[in-house]
Amino acid sequence: MTQEESDEKFMRMALAEAREAMERDEVPIGAVIVSPRGMVIGRGHNLTEALADVSAHAEMQAITAAAQMLGGKYLQNCTLYVTVEPCLMCAGTIGWAQIGRVVYGAADEKRGYRSFTSRSPFHPRATVTSGVLGDECAELMRTFFKSKR
Amino acid sequence: MTQEESDEKFMRMALAEAREAMERDEVPIGAVIVSPRGMVIGRGHNLTEALADVSAHAEMQAITAAAQMLGGKYLQNCTLYVTVEPCLMCAGTIGWAQIGRVVYGAADEKRGYRSFTSRSPFHPRATVTSGVLGDECAELMRTFFKSKR
Repeated sequence: MTQEESDEKFMRMALAEAREAMERDEVPIGAVIVSPRGMVIGRGHNLTEALADVSAHAEMQAITAAAQMLGGKYLQNCTLYVTVEPCLMCAGTIGWAQIGRVVYGAADEKRGYRSFTSRSPFHPRATVTSGVLGDECAELMRTFFKSKR
Repeated sequence: MTQEESDEKFMRMALAEAREAMERDEVPIGAVIVSPRGMVIGRGHNLTEALADVSAHAEMQAITAAAQMLGGKYLQNCTLYVTVEPCLMCAGTIGWAQIGRVVYGAADEKRGYRSFTSRSPFHPRATVTSGVLGDECAELMRTFFKSKR
């Protein structure tokens, strides 16, 4: 499998998480964390309404799950897949967890970390790939917010 | 009581939290959240080692506690006191929680949100006060890291 194919495969899993959020009437964002060997070690979706907790974003759920699975708090060499560009809070957490690679689908012009930061919030050696299944990820968000108007 | 006196009073509570962290061999940072009527509705200290969770910063603990006490996730008009300048993750969370005022003690040149951000991560109407008991807050950090060398 090429990296492009494997990125799409894991982004589809993150999209499935996002759809679970949608079904619970949560902002439809999902995340998956993959180990260097290609194992899914954490997944999650946005639960801010259900938990009445502003920090219950998909990435935070997935990072906590992965850290618990590994029994340690650092996720070096792991890849985080998330359907939408991380916010500042999540970007900061991704940095603290030392996640090695960040792959996101749709850009978030308003709340995404890139509109706030003047330098990378991630680990110095971390790489970022954007736009993987971006249209599909963005469409899910549009559908959700249209239903709220 | 003047605002200056009340700021020092609540920062002393945050410092007491920071000392609890120190006793548990955690980075000594503490936080307190105060309601508009001057009631402490959340407090916490850094627990990243004990919980093996990179996101278990003092501010995150205090915000979660305050949201649980209020039964809602927004903390508008509340003030957050924290002994050290918030990191990017915490600054993002403070923004999501819509906290009205942020008061911190010591600056954090390396990990503080100001060195990463090009615009305020907080609610548009939020105000920030820095340097309250700053020397005392910084001294606690210096003592901790000196003991680690």
